[in-house]
Amino acid sequence: MQNFVYDVPTKIRFGKGEEAMCGRELAGIGASRVLVHYGSDRVKISGLLGRIEDSLQESGLSAVELGGVAPNPRLELVRRGIDLCREEKVDAILCVGGGSVIDSAKGIAAGVLYNGDVWDFYTDKATPSDALPLGVVLTIPAAGSESSPGSVVTKPESRQKFYFNAQCVRPRFAILNPELTFSLPPFQTAAGAADIMAHIMERYFTREPNVDLTDRLCEAALRTIIRNVPKVLADPEDYASRAEIMWTGTIAHNDLLGTGRVDDWSSHDIEHELSAQYDVTHGAGLAVIFPAWMRYVNGEDPDRFVQFATRVWNVEYKADDRQAMIDEGIKKLRDFFSLIGLPTSLKELGVEDQRYDQMARQALRHGSLGNFKKLNQKDVVEIYRLAEG
Amino acid sequence: MQNFVYDVPTKIRFGKGEEAMCGRELAGIGASRVLVHYGSDRVKISGLLGRIEDSLQESGLSAVELGGVAPNPRLELVRRGIDLCREEKVDAILCVGGGSVIDSAKGIAAGVLYNGDVWDFYTDKATPSDALPLGVVLTIPAAGSESSPGSVVTKPESRQKFYFNAQCVRPRFAILNPELTFSLPPFQTAAGAADIMAHIMERYFTREPNVDLTDRLCEAALRTIIRNVPKVLADPEDYASRAEIMWTGTIAHNDLLGTGRVDDWSSHDIEHELSAQYDVTHGAGLAVIFPAWMRYVNGEDPDRFVQFATRVWNVEYKADDRQAMIDEGIKKLRDFFSLIGLPTSLKELGVEDQRYDQMARQALRHGSLGNFKKLNQKDVVEIYRLAEG
Repeated sequence: MQNFVYDVPTKIRFGKGEEAMCGRELAGIGASRVLVHYGSDRVKISGLLGRIEDSLQESGLSAVELGGVAPNPRLELVRRGIDLCREEKVDAILCVGGGSVIDSAKGIAAGVLYNGDVWDFYTDKATPSDALPLGVVLTIPAAGSESSPGSVVTKPESRQKFYFNAQCVRPRFAILNPELTFSLPPFQTAAGAADIMAHIMERYFTREPNVDLTDRLCEAALRTIIRNVPKVLADPEDYASRAEIMWTGTIAHNDLLGTGRVDDWSSHDIEHELSAQYDVTHGAGLAVIFPAWMRYVNGEDPDRFVQFATRVWNVEYKADDRQAMIDEGIKKLRDFFSLIGLPTSLKELGVEDQRYDQMARQALRHGSLGNFKKLNQKDVVEIYRLAEG
Repeated sequence: MQNFVYDVPTKIRFGKGEEAMCGRELAGIGASRVLVHYGSDRVKISGLLGRIEDSLQESGLSAVELGGVAPNPRLELVRRGIDLCREEKVDAILCVGGGSVIDSAKGIAAGVLYNGDVWDFYTDKATPSDALPLGVVLTIPAAGSESSPGSVVTKPESRQKFYFNAQCVRPRFAILNPELTFSLPPFQTAAGAADIMAHIMERYFTREPNVDLTDRLCEAALRTIIRNVPKVLADPEDYASRAEIMWTGTIAHNDLLGTGRVDDWSSHDIEHELSAQYDVTHGAGLAVIFPAWMRYVNGEDPDRFVQFATRVWNVEYKADDRQAMIDEGIKKLRDFFSLIGLPTSLKELGVEDQRYDQMARQALRHGSLGNFKKLNQKDVVEIYRLAEG
């Protein structure tokens, strides 16, 4: 186990009706004039935005709105948000939505206090040291951005999807009401689940020895997703199962499951290039890339893949054919993605041409990828190939 | 799953040599003059206190020392600490030790800012609203007090062991170096493990339905303790296993495992009376009381006990004799306590006379005990009886 610092002060309010507390929570972090940041008009139509406005008003807060965040959120909107916050003298941001909304809000929150172009943060030219305080009302369990320090933003004109991590943009509070996820379409529910599973697996597949507790916590989180996603696809208003998925989504990405471990993250980096090139849904891209990555790297540490197969997927131990166990574990993951309606090949994802070299080069811009196996240009291209069919 | 608030901002620094960062962490929470609070002189002899003093000095902090905290920490010492902090104008407290040191420091931290007798907090006459900021260098993984809001203190002259919970005394940071636990004697290691397991099981045994994720997280934490404690008893300097136990001890009691659940806590309350009457080691008392409680209450929700037996102890499913599975699960827990050198009966604990009625009355001073089964006077006496042999 490696030395680590675990510093996740995000306060979680979880359960039915908790969005009514957002005004009080904002007041508690010193807000007086709030940017309410959201995605589509669905949050207006559903009445959620109205309830939030009421809560802000009750706490004596004024608000400015900025909607229109789309999946794979764009740099342009972040810049617009920064201008708006400065003009309106906003002192806190409330995100109403999922990862895209929160990620662009993090860019805004740090950009407002930065004397330069916010894109600098995403291109490693500068590091945010301060930001407006952020709160979240989560509507999509997937990205885990509600308690993470990360922001991923896309610059579509140059097909770049880049990220930064900074403690100052970690949300101060997050409100998680599973009822707000009842209306998520099946595909988005499933893609969110794949994203959650990927966050766990990026941490699970490590070469670090002696990580007993976190192995088991990861397995617990994976099994919870595997059990509960089919339930909500069968019954979208199954509160109990929506709640399990929502809480697991936060735990999956709040650093706990990675404590003392060396994470991998190559599947995420490889997928980001798909999203940048083809604007595919991140979770769907991960459902395609992760099993391909597993097929490519499992020989590096077969024991870990045997453990994954037995503990997560109940694959029976076969002393005389451990490779069959490994293959069965990976197949069960792929079958699960298929079962919940996700693509499991680039073809099913609608990616037909082969920009593999170009995507691999972009993914490798910081050097090699991943830690479970250090991947080079040839490796990444090979993983895209394995993901084809 | 119940609505919940999860608000645990304690920063964790984990690993070899991390105590050297305590000066910097204290400076980070605004300290300038620090009470260094500890137990026996072992922390002096081992050189730990010297390293801590160096770290404080490097960060420009001055220090006042107060040692002498004993297990089942006493009200008198808390009062002495309060006087000392006022005289010396201390503005933060650093605890160097385990649960007893941290618990008495919490009483001091809240008492310094309270215009009355600190015992009021423990007797529900007042609630702490503010406290000096606390930091911890942990040397005993057991109580989980390093990131909890609770403080338990004993008033020996009236044989009262009472507690309070308040967010303001939750430590701001905790430094966990597993090397500092190498010198723990086997009995203290084992008693700490029983305390950790009890913290998990007090949450695990709930009547709340739909707690899938937290069930699995609890099982992960229990299995980690079960696997690693025998290893450190065989090899006290096994860093990896000491690390697993230490991190599990914090996770076990930082609220995460109880999110959305209704906890029980009757075994703790029943044990506290043993400690108050006979000054027994808390973890050893729990090793005696918890299995007795299980034997008494398992009929309330046999399914949960069957799950405990199969998932935690690998008891084989017997469709035609579920009670045998339940009994086997409880027996395995008891056998484990025995294996690691703990008493499993009041007799082995050295409690020979039977003050059951008196202890039960004191335990029930707030009304009924527990939630898995609401216990009355007769129930509590019966559990003490079951714990006899």
